[in-house]
Amino acid sequence: MDDKFHEECGIFGVYKHADAARITYLGLYALQHRGQESAGIVSSDRHELHACKGMGHVADIFTEANLEGLKGDVAIGHTRYSTAGESSLKNAQPIQVVCSKGNLALCHNGNLVNAHEIRSQLEADGSIFQSTSDSEVILHLIARSHKPAIEEAIQEALLQVTGAYSLIFLTQEKMVVVRDPRGFRPLCFGWLDGSPVVGSETCAFDLIDADFEREVEPGEMLIFSENGVESRKVFAPARPSFCIFEHVYFSRPDSRIFGRSVYQSRYLLGKYLAQEQPADADIVVPIPDSGVAAAIGFARESGLQFEFGLIRNHYVGRTFIEPKQSIRHFGVRIKLNTVEDLLRGKRVILVDDSIVRGTTSRKIVKMVRAAGATEVHMRISCPPTISPCYYGVDTPNKRELIAASHSVEETCKYIEADSLGYLSHEGMLRACGDSEEQPHFCTACYTGKYPVEFPESALVQIGDPVPR
Amino acid sequence: MDDKFHEECGIFGVYKHADAARITYLGLYALQHRGQESAGIVSSDRHELHACKGMGHVADIFTEANLEGLKGDVAIGHTRYSTAGESSLKNAQPIQVVCSKGNLALCHNGNLVNAHEIRSQLEADGSIFQSTSDSEVILHLIARSHKPAIEEAIQEALLQVTGAYSLIFLTQEKMVVVRDPRGFRPLCFGWLDGSPVVGSETCAFDLIDADFEREVEPGEMLIFSENGVESRKVFAPARPSFCIFEHVYFSRPDSRIFGRSVYQSRYLLGKYLAQEQPADADIVVPIPDSGVAAAIGFARESGLQFEFGLIRNHYVGRTFIEPKQSIRHFGVRIKLNTVEDLLRGKRVILVDDSIVRGTTSRKIVKMVRAAGATEVHMRISCPPTISPCYYGVDTPNKRELIAASHSVEETCKYIEADSLGYLSHEGMLRACGDSEEQPHFCTACYTGKYPVEFPESALVQIGDPVPR
Amino acid sequence: MDDKFHEECGIFGVYKHADAARITYLGLYALQHRGQESAGIVSSDRHELHACKGMGHVADIFTEANLEGLKGDVAIGHTRYSTAGESSLKNAQPIQVVCSKGNLALCHNGNLVNAHEIRSQLEADGSIFQSTSDSEVILHLIARSHKPAIEEAIQEALLQVTGAYSLIFLTQEKMVVVRDPRGFRPLCFGWLDGSPVVGSETCAFDLIDADFEREVEPGEMLIFSENGVESRKVFAPARPSFCIFEHVYFSRPDSRIFGRSVYQSRYLLGKYLAQEQPADADIVVPIPDSGVAAAIGFARESGLQFEFGLIRNHYVGRTFIEPKQSIRHFGVRIKLNTVEDLLRGKRVILVDDSIVRGTTSRKIVKMVRAAGATEVHMRISCPPTISPCYYGVDTPNKRELIAASHSVEETCKYIEADSLGYLSHEGMLRACGDSEEQPHFCTACYTGKYPVEFPESALVQIGDPVPR
Amino acid sequence: MDDKFHEECGIFGVYKHADAARITYLGLYALQHRGQESAGIVSSDRHELHACKGMGHVADIFTEANLEGLKGDVAIGHTRYSTAGESSLKNAQPIQVVCSKGNLALCHNGNLVNAHEIRSQLEADGSIFQSTSDSEVILHLIARSHKPAIEEAIQEALLQVTGAYSLIFLTQEKMVVVRDPRGFRPLCFGWLDGSPVVGSETCAFDLIDADFEREVEPGEMLIFSENGVESRKVFAPARPSFCIFEHVYFSRPDSRIFGRSVYQSRYLLGKYLAQEQPADADIVVPIPDSGVAAAIGFARESGLQFEFGLIRNHYVGRTFIEPKQSIRHFGVRIKLNTVEDLLRGKRVILVDDSIVRGTTSRKIVKMVRAAGATEVHMRISCPPTISPCYYGVDTPNKRELIAASHSVEETCKYIEADSLGYLSHEGMLRACGDSEEQPHFCTACYTGKYPVEFPESALVQIGDPVPR
Repeated sequence: MDDKFHEECGIFGVYKHADAARITYLGLYALQHRGQESAGIVSSDRHELHACKGMGHVADIFTEANLEGLKGDVAIGHTRYSTAGESSLKNAQPIQVVCSKGNLALCHNGNLVNAHEIRSQLEADGSIFQSTSDSEVILHLIARSHKPAIEEAIQEALLQVTGAYSLIFLTQEKMVVVRDPRGFRPLCFGWLDGSPVVGSETCAFDLIDADFEREVEPGEMLIFSENGVESRKVFAPARPSFCIFEHVYFSRPDSRIFGRSVYQSRYLLGKYLAQEQPADADIVVPIPDSGVAAAIGFARESGLQFEFGLIRNHYVGRTFIEPKQSIRHFGVRIKLNTVEDLLRGKRVILVDDSIVRGTTSRKIVKMVRAAGATEVHMRISCPPTISPCYYGVDTPNKRELIAASHSVEETCKYIEADSLGYLSHEGMLRACGDSEEQPHFCTACYTGKYPVEFPESALVQIGDPVPR
Repeated sequence: MDDKFHEECGIFGVYKHADAARITYLGLYALQHRGQESAGIVSSDRHELHACKGMGHVADIFTEANLEGLKGDVAIGHTRYSTAGESSLKNAQPIQVVCSKGNLALCHNGNLVNAHEIRSQLEADGSIFQSTSDSEVILHLIARSHKPAIEEAIQEALLQVTGAYSLIFLTQEKMVVVRDPRGFRPLCFGWLDGSPVVGSETCAFDLIDADFEREVEPGEMLIFSENGVESRKVFAPARPSFCIFEHVYFSRPDSRIFGRSVYQSRYLLGKYLAQEQPADADIVVPIPDSGVAAAIGFARESGLQFEFGLIRNHYVGRTFIEPKQSIRHFGVRIKLNTVEDLLRGKRVILVDDSIVRGTTSRKIVKMVRAAGATEVHMRISCPPTISPCYYGVDTPNKRELIAASHSVEETCKYIEADSLGYLSHEGMLRACGDSEEQPHFCTACYTGKYPVEFPESALVQIGDPVPR
Repeated sequence: MDDKFHEECGIFGVYKHADAARITYLGLYALQHRGQESAGIVSSDRHELHACKGMGHVADIFTEANLEGLKGDVAIGHTRYSTAGESSLKNAQPIQVVCSKGNLALCHNGNLVNAHEIRSQLEADGSIFQSTSDSEVILHLIARSHKPAIEEAIQEALLQVTGAYSLIFLTQEKMVVVRDPRGFRPLCFGWLDGSPVVGSETCAFDLIDADFEREVEPGEMLIFSENGVESRKVFAPARPSFCIFEHVYFSRPDSRIFGRSVYQSRYLLGKYLAQEQPADADIVVPIPDSGVAAAIGFARESGLQFEFGLIRNHYVGRTFIEPKQSIRHFGVRIKLNTVEDLLRGKRVILVDDSIVRGTTSRKIVKMVRAAGATEVHMRISCPPTISPCYYGVDTPNKRELIAASHSVEETCKYIEADSLGYLSHEGMLRACGDSEEQPHFCTACYTGKYPVEFPESALVQIGDPVPR
Repeated sequence: MDDKFHEECGIFGVYKHADAARITYLGLYALQHRGQESAGIVSSDRHELHACKGMGHVADIFTEANLEGLKGDVAIGHTRYSTAGESSLKNAQPIQVVCSKGNLALCHNGNLVNAHEIRSQLEADGSIFQSTSDSEVILHLIARSHKPAIEEAIQEALLQVTGAYSLIFLTQEKMVVVRDPRGFRPLCFGWLDGSPVVGSETCAFDLIDADFEREVEPGEMLIFSENGVESRKVFAPARPSFCIFEHVYFSRPDSRIFGRSVYQSRYLLGKYLAQEQPADADIVVPIPDSGVAAAIGFARESGLQFEFGLIRNHYVGRTFIEPKQSIRHFGVRIKLNTVEDLLRGKRVILVDDSIVRGTTSRKIVKMVRAAGATEVHMRISCPPTISPCYYGVDTPNKRELIAASHSVEETCKYIEADSLGYLSHEGMLRACGDSEEQPHFCTACYTGKYPVEFPESALVQIGDPVPR
């Protein structure tokens, strides 16, 4: 129903807190936007692990009764989005197994680019797999490690994988947190009543009133045990590759990640967009909710009026029953409606954060015209999206990305806008506090330049031709 | 969890359309904001009525299978909000009965002020009641009418009741729509592919791509039958009493009701508020979602920057499990979070649409200060709410309305704001296109002057002292 | 899936017991065989009534949580069977209404033969009906009575209805129990820890360890109040018309009803059947479970070996998914399977309690032959069933009763048995302790002689020609 | 609520049948008595495997929709019972994994005695386990085999395990069936419309009208592929150890297993019991349902009357809510009730198939006395149960088996019977067609002599002292 990239996971963990399972539940609640397909929590009471997983939203899965069953003072949790084909309870996380290292549970945000190759090797060596998730590979590597200490086994395992991973492990005694050497996905660290907490974004800390201390650093391992918190650098240093799309679209605007306010980045994305791609128009209208901050920036910079000309329906359920006959604008009207009195007779600038296939943009442009707009100018607060992501974001393959095969003019024609303008790569980096010279961000989806190489098998899975 | 007045119902109907049940489902989908407790649809295939009702959201209640079961080409539907004590499936609408007039179903938005008295009389005369809803009274009066035609029996029944009612009746053959003489609650009329539709707000028409024709007029009855549409004036003319709170808060901003764009009214409410109650501050921040249009109006009029400094979590479920220990700001943070980088060091004007008990406003002010705001000025886009509503809105009793017993200064102190300003009664009327001299709106909740008198029994039910 | 008459209800009530809702739940549990479609309990805490109803089995509907919600020391409950067309939650009992007599709930086992006529009159007088159940008529008549005392209003109402009814009423203060003047359906009275209990069969008392005192007498009203128990004779005396099919099939064999052990009656039915309808055979096999006692009686009287040659599957669920292609004996094998080693080469007498349409009997005979029986002799422990029941039993209409239009020889041929024998009317009465001269039982389904007359409307509903 | 040994599983499979999933569903339906905790089906459409598993009864888990999803012409299924502690969906079967042999699913009835040891070794070698089931060990051994053909990998794996196993494997192309060398658990082979079927008992074939061909032989592997059926003997020959308790209690009486009618065995168990342990009494009463055939045998041999003096309630649900205060006989009355008129004043012989802890027997004896029996003689159709089972039956540990620590006299006293008699070991073997000299049955639970040795670890798990 939408035409966006999708974040694949949110993760959270708390160590030594009397209310560990509920705190984790709240953390997942705040991270719900990072994955609405399934969620799970595993807790440890130091004798055994307790688990509860389910399909759907956090608020629907967890009840008083099953939170009561999640005993113990350590807990980790996960929310997950997935493409339909692989969607099932057996892929829900945390994954929990028993192996040579004892009871072990894992939450993973990201994607391993060499998972397919390692899995083939592991299967050849006699391993059995119960999910289709790449994360299960990590547990097999740990189980096969001869290092007795769990943190060393984890390190040994991770030295064999490449790609994006923010990880939280739980054993009976310890919680171990790792972020990959390039730090693709965010991971924050803070304190709640003297207990350490980790979570994908700071908005999870705000809800529980935890104090943000710092981000887990790229390549850092944090070991939470009876001995307190220990930090280790377990990988060779690498240039950071923070996912810039977290600032452009994924993260909540009230979060701070990668050392920076998301709202602030989005405001500047809109501001620079107005500088680079002005339009002769009457009003600036955001495509809610994600386009709001950029539209405010655009409007203020351009001196045009900011108007909430599109209203989002927030009661959209997970299933939707279609009418038997087709209805104009139907697919998009389930989510968005126009305020006709605002749009009628106006030259309208629409501000959005991305065009993926172009199908939804085209419907929105039509709907805005049907509401009486005399001109519709589409402005996108980032460059054209031309390459799929292999680092933990659900993207269509290259063939489906309209900007991969169409010029800006062709795309403009397809979506039937009067003009179309994208922010430049340089403008995007600057808005997010980065520079072309020494970039900290991964912008592969805009450039096709992938910071971590991957075997062809990774591509074959997704069905794209190998990029050069 | 919130501290707002609540709309009690949304209603929808369609006559002679091949896809009647699904069209009604879509209509209710768009009217979900008018009641999230229960929903129902009754259809007619001209031989019998088919019903499906359930607790919860429209998207959760209706499945392909039960929409298939709602056979026929006429359907009416209802979404309902209710206070906890009376919440149950037996009060869900449409109410469906068999009586001397045959099969009969009813959807009601509004509240009868003399229902209690009539019900007592009906019980004394031997009627039995299966719900606690006032709407059941109407059906009893119809059943007892000796008029053979259903539309005349309805008229006879309604001449005995007073109060607020937008009604849709369904018999095997006809759909009958009535709006009370003062038109308290909205009701719109339009066409979809040549089939007539009615619904509480125009946003329901937008979703299904129906064309809005006009509002059902106060005191008008529309009879849809094989003979087409017939309009009758069935009551003595009365001065209109449109619920002004529909413009201030209830209706969706993309709707047009009472002959006017809701967004437009809200924008002007904010604009006049800025004129009447300016504040020396840096930024204007709406309390989302309802305060957005007013905040835009306020910001533009005052020349201050509009900022989205509070972010709403749209994944809030119907149940929420509390942590064991108390967490600061917790209750409000489930729904709203601050963007610290926007608020830090700023003098902030918060724009909201009402203060009911004051408890939530107080939490929001605290949370905004905790985010670093140096001053917090609360501005409300309507006058103080001092009296309960007896016309179909769920309001606390007078004792709980903070403005009923506290001056503006006292309320300001309670919510711990640096200043508090309300829009004047005159300003509110003007923003909604009305005048003090010849008002079309009911503003009883701001004035205590009730346009339709009611017996003391109506008050006793709600637990308030009788107003003078 | 089966081809039997069906009991339509079991009822239970307890007055002034600290654990009233749970005791009622247990009573319904024991009466589950009297209706598996829906069940409900209403309790009174002397201030208000609390209700819980649901579709399905008692064990599935009631949870700890909803039994907790059924507050108070008085409770009444109901289990219901219904034909598919009328099956829905709105027909589930107890029915609960508010009327001139206050809060009122009702459980009804039986059927009113003049309900249709009275309902038409009530509708003409302005009453509205929410269910299709005949029991709702009783509540309307009570509501319309001008007698102030509930027991007198009940009496006045019941003097207007004819037919079969064992009733339990609940008001906030009292429990009132009535059995119709002819006592069609059973109703027992006993004590549990000093608290009075009533229930359809004594097996409900056994489960809760209550002491059976006596049956509620035909035409008796028992009023349970703060003043203790009062018994009134509220109707003119009439000749009893106990439903003989309760002994033949409906009631549990461990119950005593109508002053007599059900098992004992069934044993004698089998014994006399052996005397009247002997067969030259090797073994006697019951069709379980209902045919067991009669088969034991038959075997002992005939001197033949009793063998459990048909085994019942007790895990049969309420829904059953059919295979795509047809399978021989499939429909009956879901419930019954043959013990081939017992049947092979044997001349078998099958003992069953009724043949309704004959379809199932035919399948069983075929299956027994397929297991190797050389001869199959069907013996039925009652006379041929030729007329429908209008007193609370779910029977097909006359056209579908094979014995109504076929001779015994024709029926035998249809079911493909080697011989078929029914018990005589006289034998049945004798086995149940009755006599032809002064019968206490209703045997209308065997004779077409109905002890209580009914208007033609009662027949029209069921679709039969009027009997002469 | 009961006090019985419990069968742990029923399994079923069908190869190359257009309606494979539904046929398997029906097979499980008929095998429901072998495990009511969870059930599952995995099918193959030759491209991928499809799975559906759930907690509860077969009739509740599978719907039209999810049977539709089980595409393909091969399917295997499993019903499972488990002790509470290990009860969960993750232990439900079929287990399904991906490994070096491709997609692989497994159904297992039985128990491996060296699973714990092998699992420890596998974990040390780096395997990870997701369930606590011993069956997962088999899949790991297969995955680690270097044999390319699945049937050879299975053979290699099974040569490493000892214990009881009737197994059905499913790959994308093949179905492989194996029974352990001693044949502890039954497994039957037959044909349905030309398609091969396998199942735990013949009653599963009866329901679908399949023709029983023969049992899968101990130590036999059947390979179903495009090439037809191939039989291999894959183990060294061993003396058979058929579980005699299948005849005494587990299997359905309408099944034939181990080459013999279960009903026939039970009848003879009762007959020989009457010879060995006569009692001076009036009537013989079975404890239904399992004691019926033995009671018929006992009655006929002793010349006493057989009476159905205990009636079983077949509507017992999986959960049962207790009354707040204790009720005499309550626990047992939920399942059984007495027919007082049969028992009053009688000297009663109760025939049952086992006494495990003695708690339920004690309650039944009390209840029968309370019904008026003057004497109660308990007769058990097998010897005293003194040792736990390690081959796939859920038994309490030795400490809880009353016969392990109490003489027959002491047990008689505990259950408060007037006399207690068990069938002799010799009598049991003879009734089941076996001899003391060359036994084909495992009778370890009666003798403590285990046909397959096991490591101490197997005992430690269950908590018993090591037997000598």
